[in-house]
Amino acid sequence: MRDVGAVWLDGDRCRFRVWAPSTAHVDLQLLSPDERTVPMEKQGRGYHQVTLDDVQPGTTYRYRLDAREAFADPASGHQPDGVHGSSAVMERHFPWSDETWHGIPIETFVIYELHTGTFTPEGTFDAIVPRLDGLAGIGITAIELMPVAQFAGERNWGYDGVYPFAVQNSYGGPQKLKRLVNECHRRGLAVILDVVYNHLGPEGNDLPRFGPYFTDRYRTPWGPAINFDDEQSDEVRHYFLQNALYWVTEFHIDALRLDAVHAILDHSAETFLEELAAALHARGTLLNRRIYAIAESALNDTRLIRPPELGGYGLDAQWNDDFHHSLHTLLTKESGGYYVDFGRFQHMAQAFSEGYVYAGRFSVTRQRRHGNSSRDIPPAKFVVFAQNHDQIGNRMMGERLSRLVTLEQYKLASGAVLLSPFVPLLFMGDEYAEPAPFQYFVSHSEPDLIEAVRRGRKEEFSEFEWKGEPPDPQDEATFLRSKLQYELRDEPPHRVMLDFHRQLIHLRRTIPSLCGLNKSNMDVLSLDDEQVLIVRRWEASNEIAAILNFNEKPVTLKDRIPANRWRKRLDSADRQWLGPGSRLPLEVMPHTDIVVGAASVVLLENHAEG
Amino acid sequence: MRDVGAVWLDGDRCRFRVWAPSTAHVDLQLLSPDERTVPMEKQGRGYHQVTLDDVQPGTTYRYRLDAREAFADPASGHQPDGVHGSSAVMERHFPWSDETWHGIPIETFVIYELHTGTFTPEGTFDAIVPRLDGLAGIGITAIELMPVAQFAGERNWGYDGVYPFAVQNSYGGPQKLKRLVNECHRRGLAVILDVVYNHLGPEGNDLPRFGPYFTDRYRTPWGPAINFDDEQSDEVRHYFLQNALYWVTEFHIDALRLDAVHAILDHSAETFLEELAAALHARGTLLNRRIYAIAESALNDTRLIRPPELGGYGLDAQWNDDFHHSLHTLLTKESGGYYVDFGRFQHMAQAFSEGYVYAGRFSVTRQRRHGNSSRDIPPAKFVVFAQNHDQIGNRMMGERLSRLVTLEQYKLASGAVLLSPFVPLLFMGDEYAEPAPFQYFVSHSEPDLIEAVRRGRKEEFSEFEWKGEPPDPQDEATFLRSKLQYELRDEPPHRVMLDFHRQLIHLRRTIPSLCGLNKSNMDVLSLDDEQVLIVRRWEASNEIAAILNFNEKPVTLKDRIPANRWRKRLDSADRQWLGPGSRLPLEVMPHTDIVVGAASVVLLENHAEG
Repeated sequence: MRDVGAVWLDGDRCRFRVWAPSTAHVDLQLLSPDERTVPMEKQGRGYHQVTLDDVQPGTTYRYRLDAREAFADPASGHQPDGVHGSSAVMERHFPWSDETWHGIPIETFVIYELHTGTFTPEGTFDAIVPRLDGLAGIGITAIELMPVAQFAGERNWGYDGVYPFAVQNSYGGPQKLKRLVNECHRRGLAVILDVVYNHLGPEGNDLPRFGPYFTDRYRTPWGPAINFDDEQSDEVRHYFLQNALYWVTEFHIDALRLDAVHAILDHSAETFLEELAAALHARGTLLNRRIYAIAESALNDTRLIRPPELGGYGLDAQWNDDFHHSLHTLLTKESGGYYVDFGRFQHMAQAFSEGYVYAGRFSVTRQRRHGNSSRDIPPAKFVVFAQNHDQIGNRMMGERLSRLVTLEQYKLASGAVLLSPFVPLLFMGDEYAEPAPFQYFVSHSEPDLIEAVRRGRKEEFSEFEWKGEPPDPQDEATFLRSKLQYELRDEPPHRVMLDFHRQLIHLRRTIPSLCGLNKSNMDVLSLDDEQVLIVRRWEASNEIAAILNFNEKPVTLKDRIPANRWRKRLDSADRQWLGPGSRLPLEVMPHTDIVVGAASVVLLENHAEG
Repeated sequence: MRDVGAVWLDGDRCRFRVWAPSTAHVDLQLLSPDERTVPMEKQGRGYHQVTLDDVQPGTTYRYRLDAREAFADPASGHQPDGVHGSSAVMERHFPWSDETWHGIPIETFVIYELHTGTFTPEGTFDAIVPRLDGLAGIGITAIELMPVAQFAGERNWGYDGVYPFAVQNSYGGPQKLKRLVNECHRRGLAVILDVVYNHLGPEGNDLPRFGPYFTDRYRTPWGPAINFDDEQSDEVRHYFLQNALYWVTEFHIDALRLDAVHAILDHSAETFLEELAAALHARGTLLNRRIYAIAESALNDTRLIRPPELGGYGLDAQWNDDFHHSLHTLLTKESGGYYVDFGRFQHMAQAFSEGYVYAGRFSVTRQRRHGNSSRDIPPAKFVVFAQNHDQIGNRMMGERLSRLVTLEQYKLASGAVLLSPFVPLLFMGDEYAEPAPFQYFVSHSEPDLIEAVRRGRKEEFSEFEWKGEPPDPQDEATFLRSKLQYELRDEPPHRVMLDFHRQLIHLRRTIPSLCGLNKSNMDVLSLDDEQVLIVRRWEASNEIAAILNFNEKPVTLKDRIPANRWRKRLDSADRQWLGPGSRLPLEVMPHTDIVVGAASVVLLENHAEG
């Protein structure tokens, strides 16, 4: 059981517990339905606690520190009035119906990243539910929610959360999140939650009033670092560990996506990340559920994803931005900002064959050598994508890939992701080539902060080649503009794209060679002159060849793939997919010329012996 | 060949090369014997270079940056006039006579740490040479020199060096250091050099004029951290890697003691430390010599000393301060400052059986859990000591252990170190129980800095229980007071202590069970009630039991060690060692009571079968 925040014991008993090591005395101020002040008892390790026998769900409260100011609970589960309001005791129960759910293997994840606020017109958890069948129907197996921890206002990507335990009130709060998870599990969908353990948002962060949650030992892009290795860091780590376990235990979350772990600065002998991975896995064992920890990391350091026996932190997977950057630059020819480090065909080939592209080589962006070799890392430990919230939203105008490349290239990108040996991730709307942008938006209430965010946003793009000014992050129109136009799914050409993605995922999930994500069962042939990648994979008697042609012209391959009898399972150039037409027969005989259309992806499967 | 600094090519040709990435133009200013200015050529990666055909050793020079101010060479090998003077080109050759020297295994190290300035009245490398025979004579196998990189003035521990490649002028400069190393090797002595890669001293540091050697990403006790992972860190790392290789290649140094690696802050995928260890080992292979990297680390993190195959940094060993603190507090009962974390008998037992005492437990000093488990780490990877320069000199009055404990306890401490399965280190003078203090001294020239050091020194002791004021670090008397009184070796009781240490080392080097430093061949029995540790070790048919009695009374052991026939090889209580007298017979029969004197160490060896 969680040991911070307001926790239900039996009946109406509720225990309030807060860490405030330098505070001599904390009072629990109950505000509604009845107003009263209850002194808390100081316990070991700087905790203050009191248990009340007659608490009602929804009771609002604050903690008063040393008889002075009162603040909301750092471990508040619900902030019904937002970051500046009081905390509320959550509902006692939720009618879970997922007793038979034990999670799904990460190898089978087809991830769909979504932002609750812009996924639907309503922008709530409830509004997601009616769309789950459709997602499951195209083969999505895991929903990834961008952060839901309480942030200032009603519009935010989620990375400005300041109450890590509280579920955003405008999304529907904790009870509605539980409902969403339950509905996902009913449909066999896993739920990944994006959690931010590297900083807190700039508005409404009262944690420093309670204790040394931050340290000035390190500098991060967001100010002082969270205290993971300085004095009193044990309880700070405990707070975030409890948070991780809270999501998997109380919300039945299946995996955590750990935001920007490179900004978790920690020189401990036992790092926070390895402690976190171990705690999550242990909890999974206890709950008899598969629980995963997936890092977003810019470190290109296999230490994160190697098992503890080999000196690793034991995280299950990490996002591989290098795959994205290689793919994106190859298709768009963009070279501004961090794209300067990419753009060569060989980068894409290396991303396929090894994982990291920067595995010790000099990075112009970083002005130093970067990364170590991931050659021996199983592909199932890398999450790849043709785009994600960051890669879209961190563009000045937030354009999606569908606006930047041709339809042929767009299909090629999806094929590269979904036929890869890695764990694929789609960003909401990818499946039907949503044209709406995903822009950067906030809804702060402090004028100086609003101005600072606007200014920061402008400065951010000075190094890119884009002209003009970014949209105003504070303007509600920016948020509204970023909402999906989900009804487009039913209209051509979006409907065709939806079918194309459904078909890709169907192939991935049904062809044996595409299911196993083993390094030993694959081979990447890179034809530099032709700009063609041939990814061969096999499993028992089954074998496939995925041919990715990044050339702007059709390419004819002679004897570059084994002289099997092949069946064509997919050609993105098919008219069926609005292409110029496939130039491959359904059955490919040995030594036949294989013609792959410009910017096309072809999937061949070996012909059954019979 | 080194590629920074002034490097001899063939004949009188000398290449000058310096890293100054933001400088458009660098001039080499030759100052003596002839004054002239030579433009340097800017090359790749921010280096500037020029080769001259007619250079004489001793030529002094500076680099002028962008036609403005001129500074000494960051990679200067010699600063004949100190940190504020010009650089000088080193001698071309040294008449080495150690061609047959290939180093010695670290398992055979008996380390003698010395500070060149206070080891002899002269305070020079030359003055050390006549003492080498004596050190080899008592069984020392490795000399460890406290840092010799050029620092301000003539009096300094060495940790304020600002020219990492330049050998302190007042010690005799580079040529004399080579002579010392050569003389050591002639006598079979290895040479360990203490190098400081975590900060530079506060006076005379001009490195920031040349490039981004420092970063403000991290905060260290000494200000901004050295840039090991920020932009342009490749060349900063290269500079320090070159430094490490310079010592082993050009000075024939056998091992580096890496000062305070916990202050080397580095989140790279390939850390500087692992790169350093790999580079040193590769150089050792090339030179056909055993080269070791030994870290001083406060991290208690086995990652440093695990092999790269197991995700470690591959350093060969680390100092184990926990061993010292356990021993020191058990003997002195001191509990101020960081000693608050120690003092229990169990700490000493754990240091013997596992290495780290803080292996994940809560540390009061650090106010957090500290360390990970070193249970599986081979003992040869830990350097232990009853004291070192820090543990003495960081006391307010710099008292040595000999002034703090009884003679019996002093011998027990030496026995604990020298009969341990770890690599033992003596601090100069330990071998004859030198009574002189080793105090903190500096010789800066900037008044504000002198005052700051004085103030800092006073503040440092506010948390300890000591009364009064520390000696003035800038006062020459403080330095002189810290010099060894080496002639005491010839006087009782110091002569007896010298013999006692010679005997301990002799036993360590000649009894098979004491030579092998394997975990699998040892067993530590801890008798908490008696405050006795029994360390059993074996090798083939040889077996020993080292009995360490930390009790203030004699202890009688019945059946606590296997019923062998034992021979007494050492009893520190012997009258021979100025003790109250041994109560053990020369031959110990099975089931005989074994009486170990108060604060005594006894060594038993199994009796040959015959």
